[in-house]
Amino acid sequence: MTKLNKKLYIESIKGLHPADQADKLESLPTNDQSSILKTHTKYFHPDFIAYLREENRDLILEMIPNKQLVRLIQYLDLDDAVEILSDFETQELVNILSKLGTQQRERIEESLKYEENSAGRLMNRDYLAVKSDTTVGGLIDNLRKTRRGPKDFYNVFIVDNNNIPIGYVPSGRILRSKRSRKLKDLMFKNIHLIRYDNSIEDIAYSFRQYGLVSAPVVNDDNKMIGIMTVDDVVEIDHEESEDDMRKLGGLFVNDFYKGTITSAYSRFIWLGLNLLTAILASYVIDIYADQLQQMIAIAVLMPIVASMGGNAGTQAMTIYVRAIATKDINNSNYMSLIIKEFLIGSLNGLALSLIMGMITYYWFDSANLALAISFAILVNLGFACLVGIIIPITINKLKIDPALASGIILTTFTDVFGFLSFLSIATYILNL
Amino acid sequence: MTKLNKKLYIESIKGLHPADQADKLESLPTNDQSSILKTHTKYFHPDFIAYLREENRDLILEMIPNKQLVRLIQYLDLDDAVEILSDFETQELVNILSKLGTQQRERIEESLKYEENSAGRLMNRDYLAVKSDTTVGGLIDNLRKTRRGPKDFYNVFIVDNNNIPIGYVPSGRILRSKRSRKLKDLMFKNIHLIRYDNSIEDIAYSFRQYGLVSAPVVNDDNKMIGIMTVDDVVEIDHEESEDDMRKLGGLFVNDFYKGTITSAYSRFIWLGLNLLTAILASYVIDIYADQLQQMIAIAVLMPIVASMGGNAGTQAMTIYVRAIATKDINNSNYMSLIIKEFLIGSLNGLALSLIMGMITYYWFDSANLALAISFAILVNLGFACLVGIIIPITINKLKIDPALASGIILTTFTDVFGFLSFLSIATYILNL
Repeated sequence: MTKLNKKLYIESIKGLHPADQADKLESLPTNDQSSILKTHTKYFHPDFIAYLREENRDLILEMIPNKQLVRLIQYLDLDDAVEILSDFETQELVNILSKLGTQQRERIEESLKYEENSAGRLMNRDYLAVKSDTTVGGLIDNLRKTRRGPKDFYNVFIVDNNNIPIGYVPSGRILRSKRSRKLKDLMFKNIHLIRYDNSIEDIAYSFRQYGLVSAPVVNDDNKMIGIMTVDDVVEIDHEESEDDMRKLGGLFVNDFYKGTITSAYSRFIWLGLNLLTAILASYVIDIYADQLQQMIAIAVLMPIVASMGGNAGTQAMTIYVRAIATKDINNSNYMSLIIKEFLIGSLNGLALSLIMGMITYYWFDSANLALAISFAILVNLGFACLVGIIIPITINKLKIDPALASGIILTTFTDVFGFLSFLSIATYILNL
Repeated sequence: MTKLNKKLYIESIKGLHPADQADKLESLPTNDQSSILKTHTKYFHPDFIAYLREENRDLILEMIPNKQLVRLIQYLDLDDAVEILSDFETQELVNILSKLGTQQRERIEESLKYEENSAGRLMNRDYLAVKSDTTVGGLIDNLRKTRRGPKDFYNVFIVDNNNIPIGYVPSGRILRSKRSRKLKDLMFKNIHLIRYDNSIEDIAYSFRQYGLVSAPVVNDDNKMIGIMTVDDVVEIDHEESEDDMRKLGGLFVNDFYKGTITSAYSRFIWLGLNLLTAILASYVIDIYADQLQQMIAIAVLMPIVASMGGNAGTQAMTIYVRAIATKDINNSNYMSLIIKEFLIGSLNGLALSLIMGMITYYWFDSANLALAISFAILVNLGFACLVGIIIPITINKLKIDPALASGIILTTFTDVFGFLSFLSIATYILNL
């Protein structure tokens, strides 16, 4: 490894967007990160810590000298500061909080009272809400006079006398309107409220579904207590999808930026679980060892049956894990979807069993073996699609993340059932 | 099936957000959709067609009477209209265009000249761009006088004399500022330009990376020709992730809303390809049929070796398919990542081979068989992680979508190599 030239490095990040500064820092080896941050944190844009990837943040923040860290956090928007401080140990958190200004500290403490990943925790408290009889001129005059409220904002929210949001006006529309116009005549009434206890998945769904730019967060009485803005949601939504994809691929964490040992360890847990599954499947095969001995062609063909079941089941599971996440599946349609899946599995089972039956007949010159594999594939694909939809729905009802657990349960089912069905059908048809 | 009560149905969608109207329509059976749209399209919010899922849009638009369809399209924003018309056959497109107003027609035709999925096609042409010495008061007076330009907007863009974007001011900031202030003193200079030929992936990356709300689209001379806004990007980015996830799960299309036959057919293609893979793997096993006959325990254990390789390879592949999509991987880091993957595979291979060696020893009471499976798992996992990273990188360099093709190539490699390695090693060690 070549030694890092700090001066050149600092030169190369100057003027970059904080997001790019974070990227460049993350791509350095750990010891270089530490060496840079120890002495040169002040050359970074304070916002850069808000752009660090969640999986790297802890480690990198620990490298920043305490005084610098406090300075960076003082600079951050409330939602970013809260997100970062959420990860801290109690002692460290109290230590940092005590060094912040009273107003910022109180706001952060208020946010931390809400549950992690809920709107209350993620929201910003700096927003503009006015009564509906406010005029354009009145609003502008007021904004010019006071320094309170957000410096930059995209929507002005309209609340009634009880502070309940009843509409919003994009700030561009206010700019276009005459001073005498009342906001109630300009506002969009179709306003989407986010409850303080909504989860990030629900929030992302609403923003995407309704094309929102910002939305009010309300308490149990529908009173406005904060806002969520789209730039936070883009990130959250993206991470949600990435999370599901990762889990479906058999990963508990994204180890792209992690070291070799950490990566190997986190993947090992998954592989270890899969080993149990695979051993279970082999155990089933072992039951039929005598029959295999009599007709080795069965051993040659059996992986095909299990593999086709696994693939068909994975297709179904992928559809429904996502349909659950995007709320396309509900109590009223899931029975008809289960029937649909069984039909899809059976149709494809029929087509594949015909093809594989013919291939087997010509390969091993045995009509009975061909019949056995055809029948096994048919039964298997119907079964695989059925469990491919039932597993994620059931897991979700048990309040477990369907993306995380579905894959491994599915493989267990399709492997065990795949070998079991083919071996038992073959034993029966071939009189072994 | 019960007959749909149209009157009740129309009652139930009144006042709903167009996105929810689209959802409710999509969840109906095809013949009910057709029956409703034939006579009752006028009760839907015109925007509802912009919220239809891409995979359902074609079919649903065909159900709408031509006159109504023209009315709906007249109402749409440019970017939505262009997206919808992109799917039309030439003849139909010309027919619809001829019925639109001159200005809308010309704008749509202009957009359709750009490539599909490029910024030029996706952008909106209604935006606000002014010179940097414009004052807050001057801008407001001008906006109040003219009806040109967008009704609602979130950022005012600042361009130089050559119409090159040099900054932007959030409209809320303009509302807060005194009439005499010049926009050049208020503007953010850190502006991110999107080129007309940027792909949707690139655009989504920029919005996410820099937390953008809207960004100018420029031509080859960096002159401003349109804008992209975050609400469009949220949707696009979401669909990109969904697409990758779907493809990794073995699906060419999301068939959630498709009928049984269509779903079965689209999944069949994938399964058919997998059948070839599985047959290839069986062919390898068949080569060792004599050896299997001599020691049936090999047949019992061989699925474990292939399955562990497949799982480890999928973990690696999932990481790198996404790393390619999110631009985390590049020419400078991919060699070190390949080495990292090989090490991860070998480390986990070592751990799993020790475990599986012991299990095999106790299960089959054969030290040589235990040695064979241990060695096969070790070799296999290193190989699986290696191809798990090399396949997506190579496919991407060949300009093929890594999410689509990686899975099937990986399975072919891990299955064939899995069986081949275990069977050949076992043959050698056990002297079969």
